[in-house]
Amino acid sequence: MDFQAVVDQVHQEVTPHIGEGKVADYIPELATVDPKQFGFAVATVDGTVHSAGDVRTPFAIESISKVFALALVLGKKDSGIWDRVHREPSGTPFNSLIQLELEQGIPRNPYINPGAIVVTDQLLTDSGDALAAMRALLRAETGDAELDVDSVTAASEARTGDRNRALAYLMASFGNMRNRVDDSLDHYFRQCSLAITCEQLAKAGLLVARHGVRADGGQLMEREDARHIIALMTTCGTYDAAGEFAYRIGLPCKSGVGGGILAVMPDQCAIAAWGPGLDVHGNSVTGAMALESFVRATGDTVF
Amino acid sequence: MDFQAVVDQVHQEVTPHIGEGKVADYIPELATVDPKQFGFAVATVDGTVHSAGDVRTPFAIESISKVFALALVLGKKDSGIWDRVHREPSGTPFNSLIQLELEQGIPRNPYINPGAIVVTDQLLTDSGDALAAMRALLRAETGDAELDVDSVTAASEARTGDRNRALAYLMASFGNMRNRVDDSLDHYFRQCSLAITCEQLAKAGLLVARHGVRADGGQLMEREDARHIIALMTTCGTYDAAGEFAYRIGLPCKSGVGGGILAVMPDQCAIAAWGPGLDVHGNSVTGAMALESFVRATGDTVF
Amino acid sequence: MDFQAVVDQVHQEVTPHIGEGKVADYIPELATVDPKQFGFAVATVDGTVHSAGDVRTPFAIESISKVFALALVLGKKDSGIWDRVHREPSGTPFNSLIQLELEQGIPRNPYINPGAIVVTDQLLTDSGDALAAMRALLRAETGDAELDVDSVTAASEARTGDRNRALAYLMASFGNMRNRVDDSLDHYFRQCSLAITCEQLAKAGLLVARHGVRADGGQLMEREDARHIIALMTTCGTYDAAGEFAYRIGLPCKSGVGGGILAVMPDQCAIAAWGPGLDVHGNSVTGAMALESFVRATGDTVF
Amino acid sequence: MDFQAVVDQVHQEVTPHIGEGKVADYIPELATVDPKQFGFAVATVDGTVHSAGDVRTPFAIESISKVFALALVLGKKDSGIWDRVHREPSGTPFNSLIQLELEQGIPRNPYINPGAIVVTDQLLTDSGDALAAMRALLRAETGDAELDVDSVTAASEARTGDRNRALAYLMASFGNMRNRVDDSLDHYFRQCSLAITCEQLAKAGLLVARHGVRADGGQLMEREDARHIIALMTTCGTYDAAGEFAYRIGLPCKSGVGGGILAVMPDQCAIAAWGPGLDVHGNSVTGAMALESFVRATGDTVF
Repeated sequence: MDFQAVVDQVHQEVTPHIGEGKVADYIPELATVDPKQFGFAVATVDGTVHSAGDVRTPFAIESISKVFALALVLGKKDSGIWDRVHREPSGTPFNSLIQLELEQGIPRNPYINPGAIVVTDQLLTDSGDALAAMRALLRAETGDAELDVDSVTAASEARTGDRNRALAYLMASFGNMRNRVDDSLDHYFRQCSLAITCEQLAKAGLLVARHGVRADGGQLMEREDARHIIALMTTCGTYDAAGEFAYRIGLPCKSGVGGGILAVMPDQCAIAAWGPGLDVHGNSVTGAMALESFVRATGDTVF
Repeated sequence: MDFQAVVDQVHQEVTPHIGEGKVADYIPELATVDPKQFGFAVATVDGTVHSAGDVRTPFAIESISKVFALALVLGKKDSGIWDRVHREPSGTPFNSLIQLELEQGIPRNPYINPGAIVVTDQLLTDSGDALAAMRALLRAETGDAELDVDSVTAASEARTGDRNRALAYLMASFGNMRNRVDDSLDHYFRQCSLAITCEQLAKAGLLVARHGVRADGGQLMEREDARHIIALMTTCGTYDAAGEFAYRIGLPCKSGVGGGILAVMPDQCAIAAWGPGLDVHGNSVTGAMALESFVRATGDTVF
Repeated sequence: MDFQAVVDQVHQEVTPHIGEGKVADYIPELATVDPKQFGFAVATVDGTVHSAGDVRTPFAIESISKVFALALVLGKKDSGIWDRVHREPSGTPFNSLIQLELEQGIPRNPYINPGAIVVTDQLLTDSGDALAAMRALLRAETGDAELDVDSVTAASEARTGDRNRALAYLMASFGNMRNRVDDSLDHYFRQCSLAITCEQLAKAGLLVARHGVRADGGQLMEREDARHIIALMTTCGTYDAAGEFAYRIGLPCKSGVGGGILAVMPDQCAIAAWGPGLDVHGNSVTGAMALESFVRATGDTVF
Repeated sequence: MDFQAVVDQVHQEVTPHIGEGKVADYIPELATVDPKQFGFAVATVDGTVHSAGDVRTPFAIESISKVFALALVLGKKDSGIWDRVHREPSGTPFNSLIQLELEQGIPRNPYINPGAIVVTDQLLTDSGDALAAMRALLRAETGDAELDVDSVTAASEARTGDRNRALAYLMASFGNMRNRVDDSLDHYFRQCSLAITCEQLAKAGLLVARHGVRADGGQLMEREDARHIIALMTTCGTYDAAGEFAYRIGLPCKSGVGGGILAVMPDQCAIAAWGPGLDVHGNSVTGAMALESFVRATGDTVF
């Protein structure tokens, strides 16, 4: 398939809509991002990248980091992570405490906030430095040794992180935190503030599309575990809109409130779309459009 | 692939577990089924069927009928069904009223009870006789002109259907029923009581695996709509265990409390597993085991 | 105390607000009531009635009937009613199904809809004719042998009663209905449609204020049971605003969506206020005002 | 009335049950309390105290402190506290986050944990030192200048306070905390750890029974505000058992997990009962028994 042609077509179709949606404002730093940006990149499993638009502008990775945190934890055998987090869609917004209380401090899945906090808490225990572990992974997969936390965003996350503190303390009250809440949240806030570009995100996503095979040919996790990550992207990757994404787009996706969406077509390619304007569920408006356009052009989904 | 060898291996692996789980008892008639039965059948898109075990014993189709009801409604253009039911996982048991009340009478998806009741209500409006429409479809796809409702099961469903009546009246109170509640539920109860065998279910499932192409080569619905059905099976097909099924099995599935599970590998095959004993979520224990075993043998999932 | 002076002062204070609030519209017949009406009546335990305003205009008793239904059921020893309904405030709107599902079909208290349906269902079992039993009681206490159901309102209730049907079938699914759902609801809808005037309601309320002593000197229920009825009016009598009523008014009250409110000052008097316009919780706006004004004038509450 | 005779009778009736219930164990220090203790004291509005049992043994005041915190806040005009907390029963356990999230960080009432945290946060703002303000009040009302925090209990509260931290941060995320969460919680934990005896609690409770009149004759708050405090004790004072307490006992009560219960008969007396063993709702088993026995003996309730 001529992926560059597809990418260009996607770019063209989305262009009239650039700027649509509402930039996240609950983290003040994110609210300062220019909404009139859009990037789209496809990395095929052989490592080739095709892209169009603002694909070298860094943005906050936010919840897409949850995929890589889970990969790192699953890469270590016997982490026991599945005793601490379930694998079901939640049916509620990403930061809701309701289900977490009813289900005794065990989050529904690793892609809603409480689940991701548990995964980072586990990674902190496993690695001694959760943020360093993830940064090292992303640097290796993207080939960019400078990739790092945007410290202004991280400070903004920490300042406005009371809802995440409530989630973490609720889990702590049920005995589901291994480290001090403040420590785990510090790693979590910084992990969410990693600055990445659209091209880099597509490259890093190959880790998932290749079922655990790294850029250097090493195996981060077992093929089985990568399938689990992809399955969870499908059922839980886009907040309380996962069903809608499966329906409309048909590719496993993980979104972030920084406006990025990572999608994969297993054994074929990783796709990264970025547009800062979000819909009511917290998913990028132009990002979702781009993925719909991509699927229309290739005629291919996992279904 | 030698599907018969795979089927035989699945049968062998599951055999020691036949009888596990708990036969549904909330519908008295289902409780009388002998739990020591198991069947497994795979129909490839060319129409060939491979099977092993109790594959010609009829059982109640129950919630698997929801797939075919949705297919019939989507086959009619402009049914407006998506204004009446959402497409998200529910995060709650299949017969819960809680979310339905909070979301103003619009069910979360067509595969939980209230969603399926809405679909049947729509099919009744569209066709004039919802049960007849579904029976005709299943007769055509299976080639069995005798396939019919088990009237004892249907009577048992109706006698014990108070929870479904509560769901339907709650939707009626929000204006989301088109026909008299009693009429739509009568069709719904009978549709759930259609008796089907494992081999027949696999054959009928080809309608989905072939993206809408019928046994006679006709197109029941658009390829796009079939994809939607498959996406919904993945995110919502197995009650409040859809995430777990995606994780463990990786195939789009729809289960029923009669003990059947229908799975599809798009463009390749439809798979039917049957064992009456259920787990706590209402999914067949040996059916789920068989699908895990099948995926292990073929090495293939949608992820 | 010069109650007539107090009643006149209340009437004068409320007069500028007559017509405020929103007439109930979910039962079409109630929506036709002229909002510009107001009545206020106080009956002292010796049987004297003081009143002002539209105190001889009949209105639908609606949920205030729940007090008299409970009195009749408690009047029969060993009804077992407290195994079928709890005695706690609900924290949710009067017609919510959520808590009812979570608490397995046992309603929170006898003054929310599902609780009242259970009480009427019990009264139907105990008496053979729940409506006749209540009508006879109200006729005796008011001395009006013509007091009866407004059949237009009753028909309107039945036509729009789907939410109540959902509640009743949900309870039936948990085994908490003794009669056919349709039969119990028929009595419930007609009981709510009994037409009563403000003066009559104050007189009937003496049954409660006198702790079970009837107009003819007989004892309908034990003093202890009357105290229970009053306690429940305080904690649960005004839908999800019982705390606010206790706070603002300080008298045990029971309201109805017909615009009536019955309050009691134990061992002293029964107070009836009526104004058709409701607030967001379903309580009469001018009725609540009148009770606040009354308490200000007498300087007396149960607290 | 011969209150000493009543008190002795209550003591005698409860004696066979001393030790029943389960000592609170979620705060480790509370779990060390000897369950075989019981005290009962009645203070009449003239200041006389009648008592029997372990009435001079200090215990942790816990949630009963919420009454005095609210009194102090209401004593200051225009605190704006009712913009920050509602006045309705919650229908859920005292430490639940569910309703708090659904209702946007505004707690249901000042007597559940989140409501009490808001009140203490307000008192900290109003007074500069919430703990000092409450300690000074209790010292003055009881005449015990040594009354103070049990520092071991306070440390235990702080160490196990994750659920309260979750509640406070959830409110902070909705903008409903005025001070740093850690600061307000520090005052809250110490306030709950004030050690008080049964006799002292009855004396301090006179502040409420006398509608705001202090031991020295001064007026802490307006009569109206004291009525509000009593109304809230009736509808919300005993966790998710307030309806049951109103029903069984008929007196406004506030309980604490230290095993104390304060009840008032307005304008007559304040009653303090103490027994460390709790029921499933967190209310003292022998304390509730004692109040039932007291009401039986006096024949008097607010209803």
